[in-house]
Amino acid sequence: MLYLVRMDVHIPHDMPAAQADDIKAREKAYAQELQRSGKWQQLYRVVGEYANYSVFDVESNEELHTLLSGLPLFPYMRLQVTPLAKHPSSIR
Amino acid sequence: MLYLVRMDVHIPHDMPAAQADDIKAREKAYAQELQRSGKWQQLYRVVGEYANYSVFDVESNEELHTLLSGLPLFPYMRLQVTPLAKHPSSIR
Amino acid sequence: MLYLVRMDVHIPHDMPAAQADDIKAREKAYAQELQRSGKWQQLYRVVGEYANYSVFDVESNEELHTLLSGLPLFPYMRLQVTPLAKHPSSIR
Amino acid sequence: MLYLVRMDVHIPHDMPAAQADDIKAREKAYAQELQRSGKWQQLYRVVGEYANYSVFDVESNEELHTLLSGLPLFPYMRLQVTPLAKHPSSIR
Amino acid sequence: MLYLVRMDVHIPHDMPAAQADDIKAREKAYAQELQRSGKWQQLYRVVGEYANYSVFDVESNEELHTLLSGLPLFPYMRLQVTPLAKHPSSIR
Amino acid sequence: MLYLVRMDVHIPHDMPAAQADDIKAREKAYAQELQRSGKWQQLYRVVGEYANYSVFDVESNEELHTLLSGLPLFPYMRLQVTPLAKHPSSIR
Amino acid sequence: MLYLVRMDVHIPHDMPAAQADDIKAREKAYAQELQRSGKWQQLYRVVGEYANYSVFDVESNEELHTLLSGLPLFPYMRLQVTPLAKHPSSIR
Amino acid sequence: MLYLVRMDVHIPHDMPAAQADDIKAREKAYAQELQRSGKWQQLYRVVGEYANYSVFDVESNEELHTLLSGLPLFPYMRLQVTPLAKHPSSIR
Amino acid sequence: MLYLVRMDVHIPHDMPAAQADDIKAREKAYAQELQRSGKWQQLYRVVGEYANYSVFDVESNEELHTLLSGLPLFPYMRLQVTPLAKHPSSIR
Amino acid sequence: MLYLVRMDVHIPHDMPAAQADDIKAREKAYAQELQRSGKWQQLYRVVGEYANYSVFDVESNEELHTLLSGLPLFPYMRLQVTPLAKHPSSIR
Repeated sequence: MLYLVRMDVHIPHDMPAAQADDIKAREKAYAQELQRSGKWQQLYRVVGEYANYSVFDVESNEELHTLLSGLPLFPYMRLQVTPLAKHPSSIR
Repeated sequence: MLYLVRMDVHIPHDMPAAQADDIKAREKAYAQELQRSGKWQQLYRVVGEYANYSVFDVESNEELHTLLSGLPLFPYMRLQVTPLAKHPSSIR
Repeated sequence: MLYLVRMDVHIPHDMPAAQADDIKAREKAYAQELQRSGKWQQLYRVVGEYANYSVFDVESNEELHTLLSGLPLFPYMRLQVTPLAKHPSSIR
Repeated sequence: MLYLVRMDVHIPHDMPAAQADDIKAREKAYAQELQRSGKWQQLYRVVGEYANYSVFDVESNEELHTLLSGLPLFPYMRLQVTPLAKHPSSIR
Repeated sequence: MLYLVRMDVHIPHDMPAAQADDIKAREKAYAQELQRSGKWQQLYRVVGEYANYSVFDVESNEELHTLLSGLPLFPYMRLQVTPLAKHPSSIR
Repeated sequence: MLYLVRMDVHIPHDMPAAQADDIKAREKAYAQELQRSGKWQQLYRVVGEYANYSVFDVESNEELHTLLSGLPLFPYMRLQVTPLAKHPSSIR
Repeated sequence: MLYLVRMDVHIPHDMPAAQADDIKAREKAYAQELQRSGKWQQLYRVVGEYANYSVFDVESNEELHTLLSGLPLFPYMRLQVTPLAKHPSSIR
Repeated sequence: MLYLVRMDVHIPHDMPAAQADDIKAREKAYAQELQRSGKWQQLYRVVGEYANYSVFDVESNEELHTLLSGLPLFPYMRLQVTPLAKHPSSIR
Repeated sequence: MLYLVRMDVHIPHDMPAAQADDIKAREKAYAQELQRSGKWQQLYRVVGEYANYSVFDVESNEELHTLLSGLPLFPYMRLQVTPLAKHPSSIR
Repeated sequence: MLYLVRMDVHIPHDMPAAQADDIKAREKAYAQELQRSGKWQQLYRVVGEYANYSVFDVESNEELHTLLSGLPLFPYMRLQVTPLAKHPSSIR
């Protein structure tokens, strides 16, 4: 089941650099593990913004929330989730 | 080069059904041809809306505009285009 | 799997009354059938508006879109879909 | 009498963890007590957000405000209240 | 129980004048009857707009929706309802 | 001359409690004095929000601004002022 | 007493030209009469838009509403009214 | 003196094709004449939209409004005008 | 050449009072000097807000930006600039 | 390939002046180097705002994101990117 997710990151400017680097490193590892598992199907940078558009493929709303709320950057992001369905003109 | 495009369709309610059916049939053929060519990479229905999210893979802004403005439904849609770039955490 | 759906109805003011009545009667029958099946779990009127908030319990995004796009009033409504998950403080 | 309430939580990032944990624990106890009393009828997590949609069943606007403003997280939330009425197509 | 209601009127410009006059006359009679009953407590024109702010005093959400949806201008208005409660600094 | 005023309070979370309590006590005294004078005609809490809707009855725009900018909470509020006029359907 | 008013004109595109011309001619006469009376103090075109910003100097909210709702273009405009007061740094 | 102008075109769908074609042909001629004069410095299509971003170089606000309101498509466009100034980091 | 400017002031609540007072005193002197020069033609307080609407009469976009960016409160304000032109119904 | 970019700068008011000056100096050098290279084609100040509109001419979405995210002020700006195409009425 597919969902489009837009994530906008807003790290407080007074967070110590070491703490920010640590969170970002854990975020990257987490994101890559989910991509390898096939659950985080696509991940694109929005040009000019500290933001991404992603497509997730999961079993349920429940699973998607668990994955998203586990993101190390979750407390510093605004997320927007759009459930997707097969399009009648899609050839896939 | 990738772009996320959201398309929201608003067909005037007084358009004759035959005209609307004809436009939709041509839209479907056009969309499937572009998918087969690899330029319209992904096409998803937004759940509960007469709208889609699509990913296009084209050579330039120019080519994208030519493809989008050629959509039979173009005069009846609102389009929003977001240029995408590779994400540093992407494993692809 | 649960979803909150808000539906805002906008019937064109020049639609003949008989046509509008027919659509509304079919909408009511459709809504009641889905409620009896357990898929349309809750249905509330928004006070002062020709709108409702509903909770659907379905198997997938796919099934939800099929149900919503089958609504007789679908061409005359704006729908907003919010996927829901279990809340950690819920006692249910 | 029913109301839909959306709650978006924004805890300041510089609040000490112990204080935040204490507020959240009291929030959970408060929410569960109101659920057991039947006044906080439903409580759902919005997927991907630190937010919930809830349905309250109370005697009056007055009572609802008293319950909501007593939430331990109240100073850190944005609340939106929508009064609900019985829908003519509801089978309940 | 009090509610603030804002009503914005949008009569289609192609409605025949006689029909519009009839609806407005019935709206006025309806509004004055509800004011005399004490349920429509206050009614103010918004300066420069075809709109009003009103305060209703009713028994329930249910009753308010019945009153509002019975307005002859209801199909031609956008309504926004805000539930009110006693303010701790109010001297009334 | 009547005006509807909506006030949304946002006290910075790092203001010392004693200072906040002092401002709120002065705000209450100020509000009650203006109510007794007849200038602050009505004062309602918005359900679920740290906000109010008020009706002021003053001689001029000038006087209203003087009253509002004198509110002890003025630096911590967002105010929206709507001038009101007599409604042709009002029976008052 | 001063008010800033923004007026955005939206004449339906299917209004006969003769009717539109008549309304505009009456609007112009009305606007010039009010300017000569001193009540419509200033009148500026917004560059690139069929819109204006105006300053009115009237006795009351009541009078302003009477003047504005008497505009021949009133049914085809969106108006926004902002009450003004003397600025403490103004030298007038 | 430079201005950025965004123009969004909305031609009513029931305008006869011949009329629309005539307006567009006159618009094109008008736009090209102004470009040749140096007043309409730049003209870009917004990708995926029936809209453009333009830069005008004119003597005054007055002149800009005269040029824009003379556009054959003016009654069918929404325009947004942003005055520009030299940027301190510009090398031109 | 005329421009309407709206200025909304947001002084950080943790700025020391002496610093804020100094900035405001310099702002007042600056505003009065520009008014005496005829460039800052009008200056009104928005009722109920720490904001003003102003009309400037300057030679160019360039000059307006120089004046506005020189405001002592410039770093603490949001400004919106609207270029104005002569209105065809104006009698001035 | 052309893109319009709007940049709004928001430097935190508690950033030490020396740090802010250093960032701005590096921003200016970076902007001028990109202008000399032909990639940052145009750079205009938005009148009355700490913001600019720019036109970039780059090879790809990828290159644009690399340039923009390398801006010394990037962490303190909101950027909006609009892809542009040749306009059919352009004479260039």
